[in-house]
Amino acid sequence: MKKLIRIINGPNLNLLGTREPEIYGNETFESYLDSLAAQFSEVDLSYNQSNWEGGVIDLLHDAGKEVQGVILNAGAYSHTSIAIADAVAALSIPVVGVHISNIYAREYERRTDLLAKYCRGFLFGFGLKGYELGLRFLIGELEEK
Amino acid sequence: MKKLIRIINGPNLNLLGTREPEIYGNETFESYLDSLAAQFSEVDLSYNQSNWEGGVIDLLHDAGKEVQGVILNAGAYSHTSIAIADAVAALSIPVVGVHISNIYAREYERRTDLLAKYCRGFLFGFGLKGYELGLRFLIGELEEK
Amino acid sequence: MKKLIRIINGPNLNLLGTREPEIYGNETFESYLDSLAAQFSEVDLSYNQSNWEGGVIDLLHDAGKEVQGVILNAGAYSHTSIAIADAVAALSIPVVGVHISNIYAREYERRTDLLAKYCRGFLFGFGLKGYELGLRFLIGELEEK
Amino acid sequence: MKKLIRIINGPNLNLLGTREPEIYGNETFESYLDSLAAQFSEVDLSYNQSNWEGGVIDLLHDAGKEVQGVILNAGAYSHTSIAIADAVAALSIPVVGVHISNIYAREYERRTDLLAKYCRGFLFGFGLKGYELGLRFLIGELEEK
Amino acid sequence: MKKLIRIINGPNLNLLGTREPEIYGNETFESYLDSLAAQFSEVDLSYNQSNWEGGVIDLLHDAGKEVQGVILNAGAYSHTSIAIADAVAALSIPVVGVHISNIYAREYERRTDLLAKYCRGFLFGFGLKGYELGLRFLIGELEEK
Amino acid sequence: MKKLIRIINGPNLNLLGTREPEIYGNETFESYLDSLAAQFSEVDLSYNQSNWEGGVIDLLHDAGKEVQGVILNAGAYSHTSIAIADAVAALSIPVVGVHISNIYAREYERRTDLLAKYCRGFLFGFGLKGYELGLRFLIGELEEK
Amino acid sequence: MKKLIRIINGPNLNLLGTREPEIYGNETFESYLDSLAAQFSEVDLSYNQSNWEGGVIDLLHDAGKEVQGVILNAGAYSHTSIAIADAVAALSIPVVGVHISNIYAREYERRTDLLAKYCRGFLFGFGLKGYELGLRFLIGELEEK
Amino acid sequence: MKKLIRIINGPNLNLLGTREPEIYGNETFESYLDSLAAQFSEVDLSYNQSNWEGGVIDLLHDAGKEVQGVILNAGAYSHTSIAIADAVAALSIPVVGVHISNIYAREYERRTDLLAKYCRGFLFGFGLKGYELGLRFLIGELEEK
Amino acid sequence: MKKLIRIINGPNLNLLGTREPEIYGNETFESYLDSLAAQFSEVDLSYNQSNWEGGVIDLLHDAGKEVQGVILNAGAYSHTSIAIADAVAALSIPVVGVHISNIYAREYERRTDLLAKYCRGFLFGFGLKGYELGLRFLIGELEEK
Amino acid sequence: MKKLIRIINGPNLNLLGTREPEIYGNETFESYLDSLAAQFSEVDLSYNQSNWEGGVIDLLHDAGKEVQGVILNAGAYSHTSIAIADAVAALSIPVVGVHISNIYAREYERRTDLLAKYCRGFLFGFGLKGYELGLRFLIGELEEK
Amino acid sequence: MKKLIRIINGPNLNLLGTREPEIYGNETFESYLDSLAAQFSEVDLSYNQSNWEGGVIDLLHDAGKEVQGVILNAGAYSHTSIAIADAVAALSIPVVGVHISNIYAREYERRTDLLAKYCRGFLFGFGLKGYELGLRFLIGELEEK
Amino acid sequence: MKKLIRIINGPNLNLLGTREPEIYGNETFESYLDSLAAQFSEVDLSYNQSNWEGGVIDLLHDAGKEVQGVILNAGAYSHTSIAIADAVAALSIPVVGVHISNIYAREYERRTDLLAKYCRGFLFGFGLKGYELGLRFLIGELEEK
Repeated sequence: MKKLIRIINGPNLNLLGTREPEIYGNETFESYLDSLAAQFSEVDLSYNQSNWEGGVIDLLHDAGKEVQGVILNAGAYSHTSIAIADAVAALSIPVVGVHISNIYAREYERRTDLLAKYCRGFLFGFGLKGYELGLRFLIGELEEK
Repeated sequence: MKKLIRIINGPNLNLLGTREPEIYGNETFESYLDSLAAQFSEVDLSYNQSNWEGGVIDLLHDAGKEVQGVILNAGAYSHTSIAIADAVAALSIPVVGVHISNIYAREYERRTDLLAKYCRGFLFGFGLKGYELGLRFLIGELEEK
Repeated sequence: MKKLIRIINGPNLNLLGTREPEIYGNETFESYLDSLAAQFSEVDLSYNQSNWEGGVIDLLHDAGKEVQGVILNAGAYSHTSIAIADAVAALSIPVVGVHISNIYAREYERRTDLLAKYCRGFLFGFGLKGYELGLRFLIGELEEK
Repeated sequence: MKKLIRIINGPNLNLLGTREPEIYGNETFESYLDSLAAQFSEVDLSYNQSNWEGGVIDLLHDAGKEVQGVILNAGAYSHTSIAIADAVAALSIPVVGVHISNIYAREYERRTDLLAKYCRGFLFGFGLKGYELGLRFLIGELEEK
Repeated sequence: MKKLIRIINGPNLNLLGTREPEIYGNETFESYLDSLAAQFSEVDLSYNQSNWEGGVIDLLHDAGKEVQGVILNAGAYSHTSIAIADAVAALSIPVVGVHISNIYAREYERRTDLLAKYCRGFLFGFGLKGYELGLRFLIGELEEK
Repeated sequence: MKKLIRIINGPNLNLLGTREPEIYGNETFESYLDSLAAQFSEVDLSYNQSNWEGGVIDLLHDAGKEVQGVILNAGAYSHTSIAIADAVAALSIPVVGVHISNIYAREYERRTDLLAKYCRGFLFGFGLKGYELGLRFLIGELEEK
Repeated sequence: MKKLIRIINGPNLNLLGTREPEIYGNETFESYLDSLAAQFSEVDLSYNQSNWEGGVIDLLHDAGKEVQGVILNAGAYSHTSIAIADAVAALSIPVVGVHISNIYAREYERRTDLLAKYCRGFLFGFGLKGYELGLRFLIGELEEK
Repeated sequence: MKKLIRIINGPNLNLLGTREPEIYGNETFESYLDSLAAQFSEVDLSYNQSNWEGGVIDLLHDAGKEVQGVILNAGAYSHTSIAIADAVAALSIPVVGVHISNIYAREYERRTDLLAKYCRGFLFGFGLKGYELGLRFLIGELEEK
Repeated sequence: MKKLIRIINGPNLNLLGTREPEIYGNETFESYLDSLAAQFSEVDLSYNQSNWEGGVIDLLHDAGKEVQGVILNAGAYSHTSIAIADAVAALSIPVVGVHISNIYAREYERRTDLLAKYCRGFLFGFGLKGYELGLRFLIGELEEK
Repeated sequence: MKKLIRIINGPNLNLLGTREPEIYGNETFESYLDSLAAQFSEVDLSYNQSNWEGGVIDLLHDAGKEVQGVILNAGAYSHTSIAIADAVAALSIPVVGVHISNIYAREYERRTDLLAKYCRGFLFGFGLKGYELGLRFLIGELEEK
Repeated sequence: MKKLIRIINGPNLNLLGTREPEIYGNETFESYLDSLAAQFSEVDLSYNQSNWEGGVIDLLHDAGKEVQGVILNAGAYSHTSIAIADAVAALSIPVVGVHISNIYAREYERRTDLLAKYCRGFLFGFGLKGYELGLRFLIGELEEK
Repeated sequence: MKKLIRIINGPNLNLLGTREPEIYGNETFESYLDSLAAQFSEVDLSYNQSNWEGGVIDLLHDAGKEVQGVILNAGAYSHTSIAIADAVAALSIPVVGVHISNIYAREYERRTDLLAKYCRGFLFGFGLKGYELGLRFLIGELEEK
């Protein structure tokens, strides 16, 4: 049976491909997701996005019941939300944290990350390829078990 | 006529009984609520929960019109939400703030509480019994009037 | 054709006219909006309010597609939300930031404003008249183009 | 046999009923204590007060040998005394921390509390009723054992 | 009789139109003032500028005796001068604070504003139009009395 | 009848005249007190000293019942004791704060003074003459009533 | 021959008696000065005031050449001016620092004082009587030489 | 021709496999490197390690002349070395930053990273697999050119 | 004649051997003192303990008159008491500071030590042997004179 | 035609040669200026000094119109004046910043320099020779053009 | 067989006896080492020094393989090197930390010590005798095993 | 006999002429050194560079024995190395500190300089000409002796 992995994106990431392309690139997440799914056909990849802090929490709660691994890009909530961090801490499945841009090369307040300590691994600055790297890691983890 | 008191719980508290039981215990809030209602039959006890910051604000606005006292456990939003603090400040009914765990015995960022100054009283570290203590105080307050 | 301008209000501003009138005055926003619309009949003025951080983000995304200028009073989220700030930054239409009260004459934590740097202009302390001033500026901007 | 519980009050609390009644109320602690003892006749309630930091430490050491639970209002020493905090940490009986006023609604330096992390539970802002709530909790704890 | 309103500009604002036009635009203040006076012929508009901190204080003292409202752009002294803030606080006529540029989009030290809390309203980032907005507000205020 | 004024000295001030004379001079406080009493024979001057934080609190409580004005040199407790500050705040008689040395010309941690805000006036750096200045002020105050 | 002592007042102190009388009282400095001169006829008392930071520096330079002691109330410049502090440090005559109000009982930014460390003594909170106390001290100092 | 990629490890990483295995695992880096080289035979993988800050700088300078991409784990120097950060900034080839452990789940001082802003991407917490992920990314980058 | 050396212990150290043995060990200080006295029969070793900040000050004043060297473990007062630091500074005999536990391996607030700068030497983390090391140093010092 | 270079000195520098000679030396600036002018006869050297913050700003504005290079020693205003920094930023001619003393070897507050970032070069600690070094640099710069 | 103990000294300690003798004394370390070796003939004492951060790390790695205890004076690296701290943490043999001077009586930045928490014990201010005290402790430890 | 002066460069300065030419220019240091030596033939100029913190320390120790003055550009170590600062402090020959770029116009962490207080003079922002200015100063100093 295929392993189930879910990508959860946070605020403003629905704008990918249109918003500030010099930072985030100009590919929409949906088209990128298709190519990811094609590349990793050995897993069943699902996807959710919410601009709402509580929405991201609900999505994490759901994921804890429905899938075996999560790739989370909580966007700007990463820097401010203890509540989402609590939701990550409450999960028993592995979570990989992702940021598309290099958060250390931007404004100072983006260097704080409240979620990272509860993640299995964390990566940023790789553009959309960061999701691929995180996915590869999760697949490896699930295979080892 | 019975007094109306409402308990409002914030993010991740729907997980009580399953999440990190070494911190939060392993009783679900619903079963605890039943025993509370049985113990304090002289009041009409209602209950809401939301994982959403705005959801907690809406619930507070509603409570201001519908009940005579509130017990609020805003969870991690306590530490970060000026908006919920504003909503508490805008209420003319008494609010008692509660945390289940001892927030001073955990990570440093949990020691800031933006809501506390607008509450009638505030208590933490008593486990689920904190709700009972807060409820007893509110009943006393309402009886005195 | 009339220009389209939207006012977006954040948390607790639905309580205007009832909550803490010594700070916010006692006119409801709806009645104020009517007088504004009458005064500036040369534009088509729409209005949204949300108590939810993600709700404000969604409203900003919508506005980016539907109107030509925004007046944003993000309330207490101004002080804490990088996610809303990101949503403002992602807009290509001008945004004017407004606070009703003088945020520098209140508590210290209200002096931080994360949105201001992405706004065309920012004003506070003028009471409800702040919206009128912001609107007048936006109309001027749109006419110049 | 009756359980033994002791209330320990710190500096300036001997002035209760005379000092700044708008903050602390105008009932003396002694008269309040009588009513508490009458209400909770199932326990043997004792009481000590000291204006001296070292005095509070000595009283805590004594309590550790003589009673089964402590309600501690260390007053302003709560904000500055690591030495009293050490004395609380050294006790093997449960300690409930109390402040009469809402310490978050006062000056900034009163928001630091060095003792809280070593207490079973902590509450503030309930006026003298805070002692009653703490006492009720301790009785419950002792009965459960 | 016409109302008297005075604009007071602080340090380096005499260079407007020549200095760093990418930040401040390239219109001189004098030519802008002429257009303002023409637009608001219902008030008697006067103007002073000083590069000197004490000079700004003297101008504020004078204004308090001679006019009915002030628009103050204290330039960089806004960020450092408690003495000018005291002078604003000592006035019984309304003062509107203005900055031409968006001070939150520039260096960090420009985000502190010591005067703002004593102003009726405060605005920045609107370019020279900020003076017009402030003037309109003051006229409205004076008419209401 | 003569007015009653009391001088209360805090920790290490019993060493005056022997300890670090380059900072504190080499006159003992007792001999200085005699000359003060002779100079101001129109008041009845009493004196207490304690090296103990709680001792200073007790002395302030006593003074509140026994005299009409206090000159307080709380020594190093000035910099750290909220509890003594509370005791000063609880007094209804005027208190003048004194330090012998210029606390701003010494180590940084001596620049914080927690008591000063509750004092009628505060002075430092005048050597032992500071007591004389404070005494003169208190006598003036008492005479005016 | 009479000793020469000069009082130097800084910004906004020309407004004494009119500005914020609840803080500064309602006597003008000039009328107070007359009574001071009458009281201390054994010295020749002169007086200067400037709202200008550089003006205060010039007055201090002049005083260094013309008088034997200075009483300096630098007003708000006390909190921000290293340049005036340098001018005090450069004087070889004694300087007594004065504030009329209790600067520790006001806003936080008034607790920093850059001049104090270069003064012989420093006092605040005594109202206009602070000048009298400082003057008395200076006369004593000059007599001892 | 094969692409040249170099892994550069900083201080204490020569101890891998022996030091604190609960944090760093118990595989030596050399044996891990062999498996990496076997897995990615399409590139020519070289490796250097130095416990010396200047040594890491020299290795980066060399790499800039000899290879086409670098994976850098600067160990604890990441948190303190501006000099190594300068050396990374001076390279025109892509650098991926790696930490084996989750630096956000350890001591506070490990959360500062001075190098990250000059890296193409940065990842931590994936154990030794982090090198594999970084290598895969670099190969992809080089292929795209 | 034998040299006189005194050990002064501060708050909670009377609990040694019973309190938190995983940090402080389980030997009482009295039994340890006996073995110390036997080991160093060439000096006359005395001992005092006080839980009171003022008590420690008094003991230091006494020691200054009665013995030739002091070993001081001020316990938690080390971190907060400028008053005890003043008392150490006022002594002309050498003082060696001791902590039993490694204060850098515990909570952050224990890393500040206000007394250390006035001590001849300072040591921590050696358990009860720290007293022996300090004693040996003092004996050496006294012999050299 | 000779190049025009101006030295602008800020507060208290008119006292050079008399004030604190252990820090600033005992040569007056005027006599030093004569020797500088003799040494560099290939340029036309002018000189201004002001104790006033606004005075320095005016002098900088004038210099921008009248000379080809400026050596600026803004004295203590360097540490506090954003307004002067703005004036330097507004100049299109090169400015070299100078301090006579080593500002890093003095009090902590002298280490902040708000002007430096707008200067071509900055030097301190060389005594009066710092002006010579700055002058030599400016001459070189002007010759190269 | 003799126990092996090694002293490792960090930067600038090769200058002992010549550099700043008022702080460090004027005995060279080598001559002191000879007397130490003579005094403690029951152990085999070796010695290394390096001015290089990486050098100290290498020496610690070597010591971990070659000796049974280390006395480490990392000099100024103590205040800045997490990398050396990691190397200490990685050792399974006991390390005693030493500073010759009283680091709390010097500049502020010397009060931070990153290594101390990983040491068995830590001492400073005893001059060269600190090594002797540390050595005595280590010998005692090794004998107990 | 010719005076001996040495230039010591720290990390990454071997890259001059190739690295980030928009900041550091595109002349190599070696070619610049040749022109310097030609220009100042009255001194014997030597040169060392090291990328290693300990290497810079060793070079400073050597210089103390071999030359009569040092020009030190410690590069990024200036901002972090107390150990190099100690080495400068230990020298009895004059040291001039240099940075090529204007460190105040770059990232915030480059504004801290730990070495500057031990230097005779310090300069930055003059490009490579900074070395010439420092050299000229040192020659003047040596000639005066």
